[in-house]
Amino acid sequence: MTATGRTPRGRARLAGPGEGVGLDELALATRNHGMPLEALRYDVTPPGLHYVLTHYDVPAVDPGGWALEVTGAVERPLRLDLDALRRRPAVTAQVLLECAGNGRARLEPRPRGVPWLLEAVGSAAWTGTPLAPLLAEAGVTPRAVDVAFTGADHGVERGVEQDYARGLPLAEALRPDVLLVWGMNGAPLPPQHGAPVRLLVPGWYGMAHVKWLTRVEVLDHPFTGFQNAVAYRLRTEAHEAGVPVTRIAPRALLAPPGFPDLMTRERFLRPGPVTLTGRAWSGRAPVTGVEVSTDGGATWTPAELAPADPAHPWAWRAWTCPWDARPGAHELVVRAADAEGPQPVEQPWNRQGVANNQVQRVPVTVLGDRRPGG
Amino acid sequence: MTATGRTPRGRARLAGPGEGVGLDELALATRNHGMPLEALRYDVTPPGLHYVLTHYDVPAVDPGGWALEVTGAVERPLRLDLDALRRRPAVTAQVLLECAGNGRARLEPRPRGVPWLLEAVGSAAWTGTPLAPLLAEAGVTPRAVDVAFTGADHGVERGVEQDYARGLPLAEALRPDVLLVWGMNGAPLPPQHGAPVRLLVPGWYGMAHVKWLTRVEVLDHPFTGFQNAVAYRLRTEAHEAGVPVTRIAPRALLAPPGFPDLMTRERFLRPGPVTLTGRAWSGRAPVTGVEVSTDGGATWTPAELAPADPAHPWAWRAWTCPWDARPGAHELVVRAADAEGPQPVEQPWNRQGVANNQVQRVPVTVLGDRRPGG
Repeated sequence: MTATGRTPRGRARLAGPGEGVGLDELALATRNHGMPLEALRYDVTPPGLHYVLTHYDVPAVDPGGWALEVTGAVERPLRLDLDALRRRPAVTAQVLLECAGNGRARLEPRPRGVPWLLEAVGSAAWTGTPLAPLLAEAGVTPRAVDVAFTGADHGVERGVEQDYARGLPLAEALRPDVLLVWGMNGAPLPPQHGAPVRLLVPGWYGMAHVKWLTRVEVLDHPFTGFQNAVAYRLRTEAHEAGVPVTRIAPRALLAPPGFPDLMTRERFLRPGPVTLTGRAWSGRAPVTGVEVSTDGGATWTPAELAPADPAHPWAWRAWTCPWDARPGAHELVVRAADAEGPQPVEQPWNRQGVANNQVQRVPVTVLGDRRPGG
Repeated sequence: MTATGRTPRGRARLAGPGEGVGLDELALATRNHGMPLEALRYDVTPPGLHYVLTHYDVPAVDPGGWALEVTGAVERPLRLDLDALRRRPAVTAQVLLECAGNGRARLEPRPRGVPWLLEAVGSAAWTGTPLAPLLAEAGVTPRAVDVAFTGADHGVERGVEQDYARGLPLAEALRPDVLLVWGMNGAPLPPQHGAPVRLLVPGWYGMAHVKWLTRVEVLDHPFTGFQNAVAYRLRTEAHEAGVPVTRIAPRALLAPPGFPDLMTRERFLRPGPVTLTGRAWSGRAPVTGVEVSTDGGATWTPAELAPADPAHPWAWRAWTCPWDARPGAHELVVRAADAEGPQPVEQPWNRQGVANNQVQRVPVTVLGDRRPGG
């Protein structure tokens, strides 16, 4: 906050060398939450363990008064209340979501922002109705190019007051697996996940899955709102226009084995055979393989990847890898690959710290005769 | 983590002047989560908005194989599986929970640890069975003084490997409102809140409400485990034995009005009449009043406090206070009082940053003609 009470305009700042996380970033970390990585054990992530990122406040939306407008470059604008939406054909899809900023806090230099380490993920069973038939009923005009989705959440970013809004290319919006969602894991959508209705764009980073959805506007021109034109762009230099963030890059995560130290989160385990387990995904293409290293990336072993479920192509996939844990210090590393190649071992850096899929590194101490503090 | 892979022993460290939050503290902030303060609007906090603090990992407890042992200084040790426990008389109690470390990150000097700002609270409807009749069936011996509660969560703190365990004086354990809980807000207890069964000790800070409960041991001597003898003690100097943390000190929280800046969390609102709202509680005694200041604490106005619900004496209570918001910068401050007095305006400091109920301060900018970034 500035002394004049004005919000800073301009670009996001990079943290200086050795600069710790500030109270502003901490406020974002304590409000929002990641998925504790031991929750990789759940095929479907329970609410409260699934990651949440809210740009502004969780809005209070009265489901009884809620209605969705479908408007803009359409022949027949529509307005549907919640009952009307829920009477439409419903499908349930298990879909992996990941925040575009996942991994940001480990980049060097560190882009200031929501300081995610690696936990900004989750995989839920989302229930809703496909968007495409609704757009067909509204009659998208031939000039249409983008669709803008607006939420009820209201706030300020870099001096710009706004309702959260994201544009999607028309071809993406018309994909049959893009849903208007009112249910999560068999229960009504919780407030923090966008109640009463959110968008689901399987394969894309979280910023596309607009929560607390109120308005779908078909545009005959490219959407130039803040969340597409300023935020969520890959830039190396501040002055660049940058490349928009779209689909989720491949990633594998390991459920850290053993038990932790409360404060340092250092991991300890007993010697002997252990099965390393985790999940892998890609929003670009099917995952083609997962590899595990127990020596910091010097050598790699293929993990056994669970078969893809044809009914849920956007779900994460379980993997396992046996390991004979010998006493001493080890660094576990995992990487997934899709048709475009594996995750990078070195950091893929950009100024906003988005779409960064640098590999996870898990240092562990395998105990011998001594105790953890011995 | 140290270079030798050993966990540091010794005392928790205080952050140096200007020292930011470290990646270890950040890992705790992204794993655990606070209640976004706009969720003060919900009388019962949904899972995922209710605060969570897990010392180690969320353990995987198989409810089918789970059993609770009641043992130690009792005539007839008991062992109950989940079905047996759920067949006992059930009650549902709406109870405020707060982490003992709430507010830690705003102390100066700042004790390093889970870096809570003010969000480590929540109020849920907990369903379970009273503990006291179970202890009566087991037959507590006359020599009993404490009861130790052990969870399935396992980890290391300051070099000490342990299952999380807390002792409670026998008189507290025998209170009729102490429950063994298997339900939250009408649904099964979620994993991160202690499934399948947790302890509930209304009025006490969160460390007493042992999650993933496996063992209740009646002791004929005072409990001297880590979580009572080392952690959760009020100390000003490192060498002091300190005073144990017990009941929740009074606190009022304000749902910050208006809308936020994503990054700074600065608040903006439009000029005109606004109703300030929030909640208040105390684990020591009923709340006797709430006061609001809109000038940084120079002057105070009594808020209207909702009546206590005799059926739920440990629930938080809503309060409201009208305010005519004039353009400019203001600092909103709220404080609750109980029979022992009001919350302190100045920080009550201790080395672990526990049981700190310093008042909340919410700077807001009431907009005039200009826009938030203008």
